Amino acid sequence: MRILVVNPNTTASMTSTIADAACRVAGHQTEIIPVTSSMGPVSIEGYYDEAFAVPGLLVEIAKGEKAGADAAIIACFDDTGLDAARALADIPVIGICEAAVSAAAFIAQRFTIVTTMERSRLPLEHLVHRYGMGARCKVRAADIPVLSLEDPASNARERLRREIEKALRQDRAEAIVLGCAGMADLTAELRAEFGVPVVDGVAAAVKQAEGLFAMGLSTAKNGAYASPVTKPYRGLLEGFAPENLARA
Amino acid sequence: MRILVVNPNTTASMTSTIADAACRVAGHQTEIIPVTSSMGPVSIEGYYDEAFAVPGLLVEIAKGEKAGADAAIIACFDDTGLDAARALADIPVIGICEAAVSAAAFIAQRFTIVTTMERSRLPLEHLVHRYGMGARCKVRAADIPVLSLEDPASNARERLRREIEKALRQDRAEAIVLGCAGMADLTAELRAEFGVPVVDGVAAAVKQAEGLFAMGLSTAKNGAYASPVTKPYRGLLEGFAPENLARA
Amino acid sequence: MRILVVNPNTTASMTSTIADAACRVAGHQTEIIPVTSSMGPVSIEGYYDEAFAVPGLLVEIAKGEKAGADAAIIACFDDTGLDAARALADIPVIGICEAAVSAAAFIAQRFTIVTTMERSRLPLEHLVHRYGMGARCKVRAADIPVLSLEDPASNARERLRREIEKALRQDRAEAIVLGCAGMADLTAELRAEFGVPVVDGVAAAVKQAEGLFAMGLSTAKNGAYASPVTKPYRGLLEGFAPENLARA
Amino acid sequence: MRILVVNPNTTASMTSTIADAACRVAGHQTEIIPVTSSMGPVSIEGYYDEAFAVPGLLVEIAKGEKAGADAAIIACFDDTGLDAARALADIPVIGICEAAVSAAAFIAQRFTIVTTMERSRLPLEHLVHRYGMGARCKVRAADIPVLSLEDPASNARERLRREIEKALRQDRAEAIVLGCAGMADLTAELRAEFGVPVVDGVAAAVKQAEGLFAMGLSTAKNGAYASPVTKPYRGLLEGFAPENLARA
Amino acid sequence: MRILVVNPNTTASMTSTIADAACRVAGHQTEIIPVTSSMGPVSIEGYYDEAFAVPGLLVEIAKGEKAGADAAIIACFDDTGLDAARALADIPVIGICEAAVSAAAFIAQRFTIVTTMERSRLPLEHLVHRYGMGARCKVRAADIPVLSLEDPASNARERLRREIEKALRQDRAEAIVLGCAGMADLTAELRAEFGVPVVDGVAAAVKQAEGLFAMGLSTAKNGAYASPVTKPYRGLLEGFAPENLARA
Amino acid sequence: MRILVVNPNTTASMTSTIADAACRVAGHQTEIIPVTSSMGPVSIEGYYDEAFAVPGLLVEIAKGEKAGADAAIIACFDDTGLDAARALADIPVIGICEAAVSAAAFIAQRFTIVTTMERSRLPLEHLVHRYGMGARCKVRAADIPVLSLEDPASNARERLRREIEKALRQDRAEAIVLGCAGMADLTAELRAEFGVPVVDGVAAAVKQAEGLFAMGLSTAKNGAYASPVTKPYRGLLEGFAPENLARA
Repeated sequence: MRILVVNPNTTASMTSTIADAACRVAGHQTEIIPVTSSMGPVSIEGYYDEAFAVPGLLVEIAKGEKAGADAAIIACFDDTGLDAARALADIPVIGICEAAVSAAAFIAQRFTIVTTMERSRLPLEHLVHRYGMGARCKVRAADIPVLSLEDPASNARERLRREIEKALRQDRAEAIVLGCAGMADLTAELRAEFGVPVVDGVAAAVKQAEGLFAMGLSTAKNGAYASPVTKPYRGLLEGFAPENLARA
Repeated sequence: MRILVVNPNTTASMTSTIADAACRVAGHQTEIIPVTSSMGPVSIEGYYDEAFAVPGLLVEIAKGEKAGADAAIIACFDDTGLDAARALADIPVIGICEAAVSAAAFIAQRFTIVTTMERSRLPLEHLVHRYGMGARCKVRAADIPVLSLEDPASNARERLRREIEKALRQDRAEAIVLGCAGMADLTAELRAEFGVPVVDGVAAAVKQAEGLFAMGLSTAKNGAYASPVTKPYRGLLEGFAPENLARA
Repeated sequence: MRILVVNPNTTASMTSTIADAACRVAGHQTEIIPVTSSMGPVSIEGYYDEAFAVPGLLVEIAKGEKAGADAAIIACFDDTGLDAARALADIPVIGICEAAVSAAAFIAQRFTIVTTMERSRLPLEHLVHRYGMGARCKVRAADIPVLSLEDPASNARERLRREIEKALRQDRAEAIVLGCAGMADLTAELRAEFGVPVVDGVAAAVKQAEGLFAMGLSTAKNGAYASPVTKPYRGLLEGFAPENLARA
Repeated sequence: MRILVVNPNTTASMTSTIADAACRVAGHQTEIIPVTSSMGPVSIEGYYDEAFAVPGLLVEIAKGEKAGADAAIIACFDDTGLDAARALADIPVIGICEAAVSAAAFIAQRFTIVTTMERSRLPLEHLVHRYGMGARCKVRAADIPVLSLEDPASNARERLRREIEKALRQDRAEAIVLGCAGMADLTAELRAEFGVPVVDGVAAAVKQAEGLFAMGLSTAKNGAYASPVTKPYRGLLEGFAPENLARA
Repeated sequence: MRILVVNPNTTASMTSTIADAACRVAGHQTEIIPVTSSMGPVSIEGYYDEAFAVPGLLVEIAKGEKAGADAAIIACFDDTGLDAARALADIPVIGICEAAVSAAAFIAQRFTIVTTMERSRLPLEHLVHRYGMGARCKVRAADIPVLSLEDPASNARERLRREIEKALRQDRAEAIVLGCAGMADLTAELRAEFGVPVVDGVAAAVKQAEGLFAMGLSTAKNGAYASPVTKPYRGLLEGFAPENLARA
Repeated sequence: MRILVVNPNTTASMTSTIADAACRVAGHQTEIIPVTSSMGPVSIEGYYDEAFAVPGLLVEIAKGEKAGADAAIIACFDDTGLDAARALADIPVIGICEAAVSAAAFIAQRFTIVTTMERSRLPLEHLVHRYGMGARCKVRAADIPVLSLEDPASNARERLRREIEKALRQDRAEAIVLGCAGMADLTAELRAEFGVPVVDGVAAAVKQAEGLFAMGLSTAKNGAYASPVTKPYRGLLEGFAPENLARA
């Protein structure tokens, strides 16, 4: 089985962290194909970056599906472009936030997502609500820029730890969900340190993808995820018209 | 007061229908500035088109704000790109779905949106839910392509009428909300025909924009709508980096 | 356009504050017609006062409609008697709480109402929930009598400020809604002081009334707001029978 | 124990139906004190009538409490004035809708209220939602005037039966709640006819009142039901000021 | 009327506390029949104990019904086995949590359950939610073992008091619900001490049982509570097959 | 990895259907260990059977964990005893309803469970609601006894098909979830026949178990799933005391 893992921001070093996390849990017969988006923001922090991460993401998903991927993962915790990707692709597409909260729900009644920037908190609350976990899952922001997670000189990891402590004490969280793909390498360490389950969305998405594949399940195409209607796209985005992108 | 009205699809004839609807209700001191997006799909039907309508929309909003607009309206009933536009702009930004259901709630306890294509039904249900109207507002699709509304030879308007009848009888709707900017010219006619309030989102958004302007209110910038973080954007989308687009 | 603004308590000085707030935002072609209820409590603090404010309110709405008003505003933040007034009148009727939270929702994802007395907190929570904003809007009480807002010697405004601070810090409110018609004159001052959007319901209701009027929309009469059934009323309230009050 | 049962409409024959239903279930040591409101509408059909039924109701509750009643029941299915009555009185006050759905919840997972007029359907839905039963209880209207229930020549009872049939078949209701005090005399007959539990709110309220009394419980006065603030009431309603009504 | 009160744990001294609470509020014509389960855990603390309390409970309910009981009460605050008991019995079955929150809702808008162990908090939150009171009722745990309530040397009662204080101050609870059958003897004392309504579920269940009996109401059998299907049970539990247990 | 799959009813032929479904999707390094409960009902149809399926289920989970299983699956669609099993075991425990709706949510926005008996419909609705899928997932019953699925002479499969048709047409389900472990062998056939995704809970649970195992995640023990308190159990159930069952 081949799983395409798209980092929808354009920072290749983060793709590498993501790929490591994916490979650590992948089954022996699973091939992880990591790709970095070729256009858009270097990190996704809030609604504006999200909007411009989607075109590059969809290009990679279309290319990956044509190249034979059996499933695709969107490795940004905002689940950027997930709905559009599901409409575009025939293979299953999985968001790491959706996969993480879905996995957490099997091991804890109450849990907390700790994400990076305050401006991502409400968008994640909307996602959590949509995924049906609004009553079980809180969202906290450690107030750290996404790329500072990669900078050993920053205090990002220390701030993350302090927010986890608050989640355990104030939210009575039974488990922690790491709210950024760039935190994936910290999972084991934080689990050992805090003694509670710590869930990484990249890993959860890989196992979810393997599961759907083994069951022969893919996105239903008779509803909101119907394939895009063939039609002209104009201007700079002409090349992204469904027939150009998906069926080329 | 100057209100920018962006048609986020690239079909200029629809912009003209929208502009007419806006002008019909605008106050005497309001100038309506209609613009058609210069890039992206010719109509917005489902998640995929939505994703590619956002860049062109945001370009127009940035340009309009710089040119002195006091408020902006996104004239697509999916409220395409509304969150990103609110983060980008300092002026208030209003979606026509949000404005329509908000207005309908002042005149009816239960109402129904009648939209075009089935694939837009669930996305609109999500919007309605997010706007707090899930318990009061149903969504129906007449199963007609968006651009067929402009084609006198199609049976689009007949199908729309049949769905309105069902809404009144089966949902006990007290009012009807027209679920596509391209239906704006039908408002008065349908109201006369069915004898119930019929709400058009373009008109509702114009009055909402005038109201916020008169009250001196604009988007709160201390939460989820904080201005985009300055950062590089790469590849084809380099020019859309916040400092390029918004601050140029 | 003529907008009737009814102060449903019997304190004329508060009507004057309300009228000022209404006039500040009204369009050039809008005439504001402020009236004070002629019977009932001097201030509305809790469920009991509310009940006795309704008859006088409905009398004024019936008189105002007959005299040619195009819309009516109920200028008490409990939206006292709103449902009965909508059933009675053919013109649109707008509550200031409903108008305020509806406006706030266009500029902020999370906001807080700061009202006067603790006993009004839960009734307002019920309203907010009914208006679909339960997940976005908190309610706080500054624990001040309504009429103390008019008394320069009281510490009412200081307590109000302290509660706004708590709302910003503890609720992470992005905007503040003033939860009493008697606070309308403080809007600009508090906005300047706290640097966040501050919404006054009187102003919001005026703009909402103008909007509905411009769109030709009024209360749907085919459901819960059907006109009252003609029937005898007995005893002291005989004169309020629908045919006496509304059709005289 | 003495239970005041107030019929808040001014039709004495309906009070008699209500009193019979109350006496049928009252304990041997319970005295039922039925009273008819002395002012207001002859039947309560929708929001407008409700508003004018409240003053007369509150007068009777104040008088009854002073005369030594241990609990009060509001015998109209809209639970007219319940919040104001709880603020006014120190004795427990019980609405028949609240009591009926609360009792039904002990014997059925899903049930349906069948009420009189369509215009009462949404107000009852709001009540049911507030009482926490929105997911378990549907509301239907048989489209019959309240007083027609007393008219043997009308087809009101036949229409009621047809609506109960629909509730059992279409809603899969496990039990029926009679949605009007004027239906109380039909309870046993309908139960026998349809073979499912049929709940009458008057009976349910009597047993609830006895229960609260036996447990020594009454309305909490430290929140939304705090006693009314002493203050002047003006005009026709001067005599209803809290100190005049409740403390005289 | 005869009410079976089953203590589903196997500690007879707790049955005695429960029986006293039941007798204190029972009507003159009500006979309270207390029984202690003959098999299972000595106290019910969490999901595991709950599971093993159910068989013994159902045996007692079957025996009690055959012996002529008119209603049954499950005197454990987890409402252990309530659904199964309702399916088994033809007489009404009442859980003390359900009865307590139902009664509290008639006298307070917001209230808090104070229970024993932290591990029971989330199970009670689920119950409260299912009973429709999720928005009105919080749950707190005093972190005390159930049986320590019977031990005068423990500090259980002191911890309970401290948690009630927090409920009043932090939750703004208007009333307190005692979250364990073993607290029933403290009701009057805590009410006097804290000056707010204190609700005991055993008492509430007795009055609820009397009420349903007086109204001639019992569990609807045409839905989820249909009588068990006759079928073989195997192994150690063979004797519990429906026809063995219920119909013998 | 070793996955214990417990059939909590005592019908071995159904265990065989379940084991086949589990093996079909299990990874190459996964060993499926199917067991049939040794005590309790031959099929689980409603609340009563559920209660008596739990003891035998917990015995098998305790034995399986001691024998080295890495995860356990409860192969009854009511997720019988899931909470108690999670409290008992240190390995992850997965219910097939929870796993099925969780998987379905990754491929469809709206889906319908088709189960066997009407009396299981509301219990499943409660589960679905608790799993956060109440707004996305409907439940239908084909009105067939569980064991009739194994009887080629019955019309069970035909009734199942008819109910699936209704789900697709009336609920606009995008996917179907098979609501009984005994339907697992029909998955591929129904998928081919109806052309929509069909989800079997046994398969979904196996992949979920493999996923949690690969991620090193198990049940959080610091909340509602804390290990049972050591204490005496009495009578027939003495042997099930936590220290007897779990730690022996």
